[in-house]
Amino acid sequence: MAYQNVLTPQAEDFPGWYQDVVAKAEMADNGPVRGTMVIRPYGYAIWERIQAEIDARIKEAGAQNAYFPLFIPQSYLSKEAEHIEGFSPELAVVTFAGGEELAEPVVVRPTSETVIGEFMAKWIQSYRDLPLLLNQWANVVRWELRPRLFLRSSEFLWQEGHTAHATFEDAAAYAMKIHTEVYDDVLNEVLAVPTFLGIKPPRERFAGAINTMTCEGMMRDGKALQMATSHELGQNFSKAFDIYYQNEEGQAALCYTTSWGSSTRLVGGLIMAHGDDNGLIIPPRLAPTQVVIIAVRDEVHVNEACERILASLKRAGVRAVLDRGRGSFGRRLTDWEIKGVPLRVEVGPRDLAEGVVTVVRRDTAAKVALAIDDVARQAPAMLEGMQSELFEGARDRRDANTCDVASVVEAIEVAQTGFARLSWDLVGDSEEAEMNNQAVTIRCLQRADGSIPSSDLENDLLCIVAKSY
Amino acid sequence: MAYQNVLTPQAEDFPGWYQDVVAKAEMADNGPVRGTMVIRPYGYAIWERIQAEIDARIKEAGAQNAYFPLFIPQSYLSKEAEHIEGFSPELAVVTFAGGEELAEPVVVRPTSETVIGEFMAKWIQSYRDLPLLLNQWANVVRWELRPRLFLRSSEFLWQEGHTAHATFEDAAAYAMKIHTEVYDDVLNEVLAVPTFLGIKPPRERFAGAINTMTCEGMMRDGKALQMATSHELGQNFSKAFDIYYQNEEGQAALCYTTSWGSSTRLVGGLIMAHGDDNGLIIPPRLAPTQVVIIAVRDEVHVNEACERILASLKRAGVRAVLDRGRGSFGRRLTDWEIKGVPLRVEVGPRDLAEGVVTVVRRDTAAKVALAIDDVARQAPAMLEGMQSELFEGARDRRDANTCDVASVVEAIEVAQTGFARLSWDLVGDSEEAEMNNQAVTIRCLQRADGSIPSSDLENDLLCIVAKSY
Repeated sequence: MAYQNVLTPQAEDFPGWYQDVVAKAEMADNGPVRGTMVIRPYGYAIWERIQAEIDARIKEAGAQNAYFPLFIPQSYLSKEAEHIEGFSPELAVVTFAGGEELAEPVVVRPTSETVIGEFMAKWIQSYRDLPLLLNQWANVVRWELRPRLFLRSSEFLWQEGHTAHATFEDAAAYAMKIHTEVYDDVLNEVLAVPTFLGIKPPRERFAGAINTMTCEGMMRDGKALQMATSHELGQNFSKAFDIYYQNEEGQAALCYTTSWGSSTRLVGGLIMAHGDDNGLIIPPRLAPTQVVIIAVRDEVHVNEACERILASLKRAGVRAVLDRGRGSFGRRLTDWEIKGVPLRVEVGPRDLAEGVVTVVRRDTAAKVALAIDDVARQAPAMLEGMQSELFEGARDRRDANTCDVASVVEAIEVAQTGFARLSWDLVGDSEEAEMNNQAVTIRCLQRADGSIPSSDLENDLLCIVAKSY
Repeated sequence: MAYQNVLTPQAEDFPGWYQDVVAKAEMADNGPVRGTMVIRPYGYAIWERIQAEIDARIKEAGAQNAYFPLFIPQSYLSKEAEHIEGFSPELAVVTFAGGEELAEPVVVRPTSETVIGEFMAKWIQSYRDLPLLLNQWANVVRWELRPRLFLRSSEFLWQEGHTAHATFEDAAAYAMKIHTEVYDDVLNEVLAVPTFLGIKPPRERFAGAINTMTCEGMMRDGKALQMATSHELGQNFSKAFDIYYQNEEGQAALCYTTSWGSSTRLVGGLIMAHGDDNGLIIPPRLAPTQVVIIAVRDEVHVNEACERILASLKRAGVRAVLDRGRGSFGRRLTDWEIKGVPLRVEVGPRDLAEGVVTVVRRDTAAKVALAIDDVARQAPAMLEGMQSELFEGARDRRDANTCDVASVVEAIEVAQTGFARLSWDLVGDSEEAEMNNQAVTIRCLQRADGSIPSSDLENDLLCIVAKSY
């Protein structure tokens, strides 16, 4: 623990801790153009694992991947009035290309509703073509004046799903399916981040949406992070882009569309939901490296034992790497701690003389001595145990820091260190403004049982408020 | 075969056939901004399979994925003189962002050598950090005035690898490893496209490279397509971006860098290397759908047999889909032919009465009657057989259409329908110009045994010339 002051302590300065850990764990760097981000191999490996988990569930839900252009004619964005209003201050515009000034400038996509709407109109003929379920993995650009790596960057990576349906009900059900069976499932089961599910109040909806669902996670400083959103777009985009289908009676009818997205912001959420003063803690199911075998010293029989453990872990389907005994053991240990690898297997000559190695859990620092051949036998269960406990720990922390309150004044007080939950009936425009003045925002509206309402007009809704990223 | 005139015949108009098949197989559409492309789900599924095969081999070769920004400061491109010259007519430039004119315009990356060079300089300290082996999957933009879907588009998807090494030899060996063990292996073993390997003549090198290796494939009209390239960049970029390392003697030394790329152009190459007048032919190892089970009619026991075959194929690890018996059988059959699915299993009431179904190979149209339970038993071997025969057929076609010639005049004649191979000593500047005037270009230089030379200055090189895409 001699190296723990490598990072700013969380309690002292949480944003400082975040910046330190992103740099020291070699997750990302600032790009040369303001607000852009370089995702380094370790950060990208985590993103690839998140992608794989989300992508598999999206495919399971029946959507197909496709790819739409980066450049969008400026005129497209103005077809849906709220959409252009929502995005125009954030747009990056290409005015010069191929050696000359463009006759019509093109916008770098901030999201692809408009261009996808255009092609849906072309591809959808009859009710037989519905639902049309599309997803794309892409980069998008929203110019950012106060960037923070992973959390807010001028360019970010994401997936955006876009679907068209014959009925309002089918569209709403599909958005709900994605929100719970894709996003919330990955957050809970893989990222080990418990969430509050709900809908955004009208003012906070996506530009052009009639309803926006959100997954809100609590970070270790008690602030909220919006981790994924799913939108019912009603007929707003189908009206703007003429997305009609011929129904079974042979009449032209407007489609109902949805869109839903999750981004590299999830990496930031992962860092802030689990990390501690020694660095990242990556949940085992997500971790690109689940076990690191650390040779204490560079000696022949130490290396042999390490290789044997590595081979047996790989055979057991565990993602393991070997850190050969070059350079300071303490320094290497600190680096692996900062990177948040779930289990460390420390292999030293003294332990080996007794026929054992030391296995250490990153989150609890609990150590256990195991015979060499027991490492691969026990690692899968240890990893699964750590996965559950990380989730349970995060859920307990969240629940301990979420208070039911009876007034906006109390809500603001509670939101200094956690989440406040109060009746939505108590929050009018002036109350919302009062909270916003204190940087406290409405994170979501939910039913008393925690389920997702279909509209903000339902009776007896609760609202969760917090400071947020 | 009543539907075969759905597509323009290849012999009549090959580019027309290509355009038809891309549209009718629902591979891609033109985007709204000139030269951009919408990759539809079927085209994207093929790209995802290509990606997966390339990505696995890149990781096997030790490189790690990362992500660098879309936007590059204009000044970066001018740091390496040849590089800016090579790319400036193709650049797209953002001059307006975040609601105001930018003080320094930013370029949309045409390739990422420059920005990656900047970060390599930051990350590389000592010889212990070398080699640094990076890869990124990304979109790039090169403004295109004569676009063609997949082959030349203003925006395309690719992977670009960038590596830094301590020595010239190590850099050259790594570029060669990628070129043969990643690109050529995927082309041969997965896309079933035989290649000629070699280096580009000096004039055709990548902007800033000291040596460029290429994989050249022959399309069904006898023209060449450059399918992947790997560049030795010498110390050009390390000089321009100060990519130094401290060697074992403690002295600062310049790195040697490489870069290598393959793109969605491969999808175009796949189409043109194998397709016939009935549509695409997708090699089984690549195919997103390897087997389609087609119910001839929508009848209960037909559907039951189809479901049983589907389940057994999935258990056997075959990527199979079911086309239920809705709509015209002939029409559906034509659509699956156009999409090039390797095997069709046709399930009709008449065959079922005799306890069999009909299995048809897409490439040869060879039919075989199999008992239901034999389909999954035999499909894997049939698919592997088709994979080999597709490769062998393409290789035989290529070899039959490649002629050794003794003069530039002959070369031009041969290049009207295939490839010509002649001594590189015969090709001076004026001979090259003479060929180029006839749209015949030097595709690559290779040794007499077909291997890749390390430089165009080697003795006794052969050069392969052809018309090309």
